[in-house]
Amino acid sequence: MSELFANVPLKWVGPVRITGPEIDVETELPLATYESPVFATVNRGARVATVSGGIKAVVIDERMTRSVLFEAPDAIVAFQCLEKIKADFPNLGKAVETTSRFAKLIDMDSQIAGNLLFLRLEYTTGDASGHNMATQASEAVMNHILELCPELKYESLSGNYCSDKKATAVNGIRGRGKYVVAEVTIPEKMVRKYLKSTPEKIAQINVRKNLIGTMLAGGLRSGNAHYANMLLAFYLATGQDAANIIEGSQGITQAEVRDGDLWFSVTLPNLIVGTVGNGKGLPFVEEVLTKLGCREDREPGANGRRLALICAASVLCGELSLLAALTNPGELMTAHRKLERS
Amino acid sequence: MSELFANVPLKWVGPVRITGPEIDVETELPLATYESPVFATVNRGARVATVSGGIKAVVIDERMTRSVLFEAPDAIVAFQCLEKIKADFPNLGKAVETTSRFAKLIDMDSQIAGNLLFLRLEYTTGDASGHNMATQASEAVMNHILELCPELKYESLSGNYCSDKKATAVNGIRGRGKYVVAEVTIPEKMVRKYLKSTPEKIAQINVRKNLIGTMLAGGLRSGNAHYANMLLAFYLATGQDAANIIEGSQGITQAEVRDGDLWFSVTLPNLIVGTVGNGKGLPFVEEVLTKLGCREDREPGANGRRLALICAASVLCGELSLLAALTNPGELMTAHRKLERS
Amino acid sequence: MSELFANVPLKWVGPVRITGPEIDVETELPLATYESPVFATVNRGARVATVSGGIKAVVIDERMTRSVLFEAPDAIVAFQCLEKIKADFPNLGKAVETTSRFAKLIDMDSQIAGNLLFLRLEYTTGDASGHNMATQASEAVMNHILELCPELKYESLSGNYCSDKKATAVNGIRGRGKYVVAEVTIPEKMVRKYLKSTPEKIAQINVRKNLIGTMLAGGLRSGNAHYANMLLAFYLATGQDAANIIEGSQGITQAEVRDGDLWFSVTLPNLIVGTVGNGKGLPFVEEVLTKLGCREDREPGANGRRLALICAASVLCGELSLLAALTNPGELMTAHRKLERS
Amino acid sequence: MSELFANVPLKWVGPVRITGPEIDVETELPLATYESPVFATVNRGARVATVSGGIKAVVIDERMTRSVLFEAPDAIVAFQCLEKIKADFPNLGKAVETTSRFAKLIDMDSQIAGNLLFLRLEYTTGDASGHNMATQASEAVMNHILELCPELKYESLSGNYCSDKKATAVNGIRGRGKYVVAEVTIPEKMVRKYLKSTPEKIAQINVRKNLIGTMLAGGLRSGNAHYANMLLAFYLATGQDAANIIEGSQGITQAEVRDGDLWFSVTLPNLIVGTVGNGKGLPFVEEVLTKLGCREDREPGANGRRLALICAASVLCGELSLLAALTNPGELMTAHRKLERS
Repeated sequence: MSELFANVPLKWVGPVRITGPEIDVETELPLATYESPVFATVNRGARVATVSGGIKAVVIDERMTRSVLFEAPDAIVAFQCLEKIKADFPNLGKAVETTSRFAKLIDMDSQIAGNLLFLRLEYTTGDASGHNMATQASEAVMNHILELCPELKYESLSGNYCSDKKATAVNGIRGRGKYVVAEVTIPEKMVRKYLKSTPEKIAQINVRKNLIGTMLAGGLRSGNAHYANMLLAFYLATGQDAANIIEGSQGITQAEVRDGDLWFSVTLPNLIVGTVGNGKGLPFVEEVLTKLGCREDREPGANGRRLALICAASVLCGELSLLAALTNPGELMTAHRKLERS
Repeated sequence: MSELFANVPLKWVGPVRITGPEIDVETELPLATYESPVFATVNRGARVATVSGGIKAVVIDERMTRSVLFEAPDAIVAFQCLEKIKADFPNLGKAVETTSRFAKLIDMDSQIAGNLLFLRLEYTTGDASGHNMATQASEAVMNHILELCPELKYESLSGNYCSDKKATAVNGIRGRGKYVVAEVTIPEKMVRKYLKSTPEKIAQINVRKNLIGTMLAGGLRSGNAHYANMLLAFYLATGQDAANIIEGSQGITQAEVRDGDLWFSVTLPNLIVGTVGNGKGLPFVEEVLTKLGCREDREPGANGRRLALICAASVLCGELSLLAALTNPGELMTAHRKLERS
Repeated sequence: MSELFANVPLKWVGPVRITGPEIDVETELPLATYESPVFATVNRGARVATVSGGIKAVVIDERMTRSVLFEAPDAIVAFQCLEKIKADFPNLGKAVETTSRFAKLIDMDSQIAGNLLFLRLEYTTGDASGHNMATQASEAVMNHILELCPELKYESLSGNYCSDKKATAVNGIRGRGKYVVAEVTIPEKMVRKYLKSTPEKIAQINVRKNLIGTMLAGGLRSGNAHYANMLLAFYLATGQDAANIIEGSQGITQAEVRDGDLWFSVTLPNLIVGTVGNGKGLPFVEEVLTKLGCREDREPGANGRRLALICAASVLCGELSLLAALTNPGELMTAHRKLERS
Repeated sequence: MSELFANVPLKWVGPVRITGPEIDVETELPLATYESPVFATVNRGARVATVSGGIKAVVIDERMTRSVLFEAPDAIVAFQCLEKIKADFPNLGKAVETTSRFAKLIDMDSQIAGNLLFLRLEYTTGDASGHNMATQASEAVMNHILELCPELKYESLSGNYCSDKKATAVNGIRGRGKYVVAEVTIPEKMVRKYLKSTPEKIAQINVRKNLIGTMLAGGLRSGNAHYANMLLAFYLATGQDAANIIEGSQGITQAEVRDGDLWFSVTLPNLIVGTVGNGKGLPFVEEVLTKLGCREDREPGANGRRLALICAASVLCGELSLLAALTNPGELMTAHRKLERS
C-alpha cells in the first residue's frame, strides 16, 4: 500500500465565549472541511454569541456502548439467561476491569427477539471516545457470560443494537457519547445587527423547517438544519473518528422569543469525541487539542468533556448563523457565491 | 483566520475487479481515515472478491434535491397553488436552465402541512454532486413561483424535506444521490480460505445483526454493519463533502447461500459523490480522481457514476470482511490489536 | 366457530361545522370506543370550533397502494426489467382494468435491493378504501410482468413496501389513503371561554410536546397528541378497517398565535376510509354513513372523500381539546375522574 | 348525545395449545373484526401450531409509562433538578403509592432538550393495562417534584416521550406494555400439509418481505406482515383500548429452517392489555375474559400476563398463516374471494 495524506483545509474561527459548570473560556474554534462556507458561517455565529454574553453549555451524560449478541435455544432460555446475567452484573464489571484501567461498566440494557439475546453494555472510558476500549471490554464480558450460561452460543461481538455509525433511535434514547446542551440568548438588537434577522423569524423558521420539515422527511431525532457540517469540520480538525457524525447529527435545535430577545439552543445527545486514542497522535491534532486546553492534567474524562462542550458550541454557532441566513431570501446564495469565488 | 491542513492518512488498497453496464476495471481503492483498521478490512475484501471473479455494480438512479418552503394563508390556498405549480412544471425547468449548463429539473414532490407548502425539487447535475447547483436552481424556481402565486410567501430556501445530511427516510424513498447496487458471489472454498468463515455463518449473522439488530435499535433504512467507515474514508480520499455519509450510510446488506456459495450484496441508494466542484481542485484529489479514471472525457454524469460504482465496491469489500470477522469469536479484537500496534 | 358481536359503545357528538372545496355541512360526529373520555373531548372541540366559524378541510390527494415483490437473478437484471416495466406502464394499467370497474393505476414507485425488485403500485379505488381492489389489481399486474420479464420470479404479492398497517415512512412520503388537512381559527376569547386556556399556551405545548417530545421518542411522522383515539372511534363507528389507524395516526398538529387568536390545524396524510366494501353492509354502518351524507349519488370517490373530511374534523376537535386540557395542571385527571364515574 | 353500539362481528377460532413458564392451556381464541379473512387465517395457524406440539410463549417484561414535561430556566438548571429528582426517587415512589393500591414506580428515564425536562415514569399496574393509573400517579409525582424543585414549571402531564399510541422507538427500547415472545416449531411435513408451503420458502419470504421490505419502507421496529390485524381483532374481543395496536404492531417476526423443519417466532415488545379497567365491564367482555381463564384469583398482574400470552399466540397464528399463503402465487386472492363470498 502506498501512503500519503488527504489534506483537508483547516481554519481557526471565532473566538467564542463558553461558560458552564465545567468550562469558562474564550477560545477560537478549529474546523477542517472542503466546504469553505462553513468557516464563515461558524465565525458569524461565534461573533454574535460572544457579543451577547457567550454560550452556556453543559454535559448531561456520557457513556460508550457495544451490544453483544448471543443465540439461545429458545426465547424462554434466553429470558432465563438474561435474569442470571443481570444478577451477576457486578462480575461483568470485574471482567471489564481486567481489560483496561479506564473502562468501567456502568449500565446494561437488553433485547430479546425470538431466541436471540442482545446485551447493550454501557461504559465510561476516561478521555477516549472509547470504541476500542468498549469492544475489548465487551469481549471479556462475552467470555464471562458464555461460561456463566453454557446454553448460550456466541453470535456476534456487535449486534447493531450498539449502535455505531448508523441512523438509529437507541443512541439518543439510551445514551451514547457525550450528551451536551448549549444555549445562548441574543438581544433583539444583536440579532438585527449581526444576523440581519429578527428573533421572531428565527423562532418561526426553526419550527417550520427543523421540526416540521424534518418530521415530514421521516426524520429520526434530527430536528436541525446542518449539525453534520460543523461536526465533520470539528471532528477532522481534532482527530476524531468522523464517521460518528452519523449519530452526532441526531440532535434538536430550539429557538424561542423571550422578552423580545432570541433564546437559542442545540441539544446533542450523541457527541462521540475523545482527546486520546486513534488519530490523536498526529502532530497537528496534538497542537489543536493543546490549544483548546484539552491536554491538561485533569481527572479522567474531564478533557474529553471539555472538548465536547467546545464542539457543541461550534455547532450552535453554525446552526444559528445558517438559520438566520435562511430567513433572508437571497442571502444564502449570495454568501455562497462570494465565499467560493474568494 | 489562520490556515493549515488536517492531514488524514491516505492509502491505496486492493486492487479489486469491478464490472457492470458502465464499468469494467481492475483498480486500487483510495481510502483516507484516522481509523487504520479500515485499510486492512477493505483490502481483504478486495482480494477475496477479485479472486472470486470480481464485483458487479450498477447505478439504478441519480438525482440531487433541494426542498423549498412557502407559507400560504391556509391549506386550501396551499393546495390550489400546488396544482398551479404542477401545471407550470415546464417553466420551472426553464427557470432552472438559466442558472447552470448542467442542472436539469427532472421531477418534483410536495408535502402540505397546515398552511405550509414544501416542494422537493429533483435535478440531475452532471458530474457534480450538485449541492450548490441545486440550491442555486431552487432559488430561481422559488422566484418564479413567487411570481406565479402571489398568495405564497417565502419561508425558506431549504425546508429540510430535501433532506441534506440528516437521518431521514425521504432520501431512500424518493432518491438523492446515486443509487448503486454492488454484488459478488464468493465460492465456498474462498470464503473458508480468505475469510475464515462459511457462507452459512455470514448469511446468518447478516440477518441477525444487520437486519434484526438494526431494527431493534430503531434503525432507519440502515441494515448494515459499517458502511460509514468506508464511505468516510473514500469521501475524504476523493475530495467529497463527507458530511453526506449520513444519508450515504443508510443502505442494506444482503447475504444468501446459493448452491453452497456465498452471494453478497450492498445496496446504497444515497451515494452523494462528484468529480467536479468543491474540494475537487486540491492537488491530491486531482491525482486520485485521475488514477481512478474519473477525469476522462465522457458525457456529463458518466465520471460521477463511475466514481459512485467504485465507492460502492469499496463499501462491499469492507462490509464483507467485517461480517466474516465477526463470525469468528476473538478475530476482531486480535486483528485490531495487531493493526494498531503496527 | 361460534359467532356473536363485540358491542362497542357508539355516540354522536357535536355538531360541528365543516367547509371546504368539497364540503359544506353542519353535522354530528359518530364515535365508537371503550374509552369514554373521547366522547366529551371531541364534543368540546366541536363546540368551540363551530362557535368560531367552523373547520375548513381539504383533500390534497388520494390513492391506495400495494407493493409486489420479484426476485431477479442479480441487480443488473432487476434494473433492466424495471426499465422495461416502466416503458410498459400503459399495459399495466390495462391489466388493472380487467379486474375492477373502479381501480385505476395512477402511478408506480420502485426499490431495488440486491436482486430484489419491489414495485409499489398506486391506485384510485372509487369510494372503497381499496385494500382488496388493490390486491386483486396487483395480482393481475404481477401476472402481466411475469410474462413480460421471464427473468423475474414471483416472490410475494405484498413486499411490505406498500405499507399496510405498519409504522413506516413511505405512506406519508409517497401517499396512501386520503391526504387531508383540517384547520380552524379560534378567537382568543373563545379559547379562554371554552378551552380554559390561551392561544400562547396551546401554541407552546404543541411545539414542546407534539414536535419536540415526539422527536425525542424516536417518533416517525407522528407529531400529535392522540389522533389514534379519534381515528379508532370514528373507524369503528363507520365500519372501517380500524387496523389502518396505524398509518392514520402518523400526522402532524400545528398551532400558531395569529393576531392574538389561535390558528390550529391537523394534517392527516394517510386516512384510509371508504363508504363501500368490507364492514359497510352492517345495518348500523349503513345508518351512520347515510346520516353523514356519504351514501349520496355522487361521482366515484366523492362519498369517500366526504367521509375523510368529516373524519379529519373529528380528529381536529379531539386534538385541540386535549392539548388545551394539558395546559391546565390538574384538568385532565379531574375530567377523567368525572367522566368515568358517570 | 344519542347512544347505541357498533356491532363488530366476534368469533372464536382454534383451539390452540400454548405453554410456557406462566401458562399451559389449550384454548380457543376470540377475535372481533370487520375483516372476515382474519378469522380463517388465525384458525389455520392455530391448527398447524397445535398439531405440531403447540406454541411456547413467555413474558419478558411489563410496565406502563407516562412522561411528564417541565420547563426549567435553562439547561443547566434542568440538569441540576434532574440530579436532585434522581436522588429523591424513593419519595417519588411514595407519592405514587398514595394514588393507587396497584401502581408501583419501578424505573425512570429522562431527556433534556434545551431547557425542557422530560421524565418518563415507568410503573407496574397490576392487571390493568394502566393508562389512567399511570396518569394519576404521574400527576402526584409532578406535584411532588414541583415542590422539590421550585425552579421548574409545569408544562404538560404528558410530553409524548411516553409514548402513547404513536409510531415511536422509545416503547420498544425502554419498554411499554407486556413484552412477549411466542414461538413454534412446525415439522416440514406439517408445513406442506397444512400451509401448502415449505420451511425454506417461509424463511426466505420473511427475510425479504418482513425485514428488507419493511426497512425499505422506512419502517420503525415493524418487521412483520400484519400483526395489526390480529391485535385489533383480539383487542376488540377482549375490551382493550384498541388504539394501542399502534405500538403493539411494532414487533418482529423470525423464521428459520432448523433440521429441515420450520422454527417461527413473533416478538411483541409492546402489548398493552389488561383484564380490569375501561371496557372490561361490558357483559360480553366479562364472558370472553372468563372463558380465557383471565378472571381467576391470582396475584396482581398474572391475569394480565396470561391475556398477553394468549394474544401473542393469536398473532403468531395469523402471521404464520399469511406468510405461508404469500409464498403461493394466487392463494391469497383465491382465499379472499372465497371468504368474502361466503
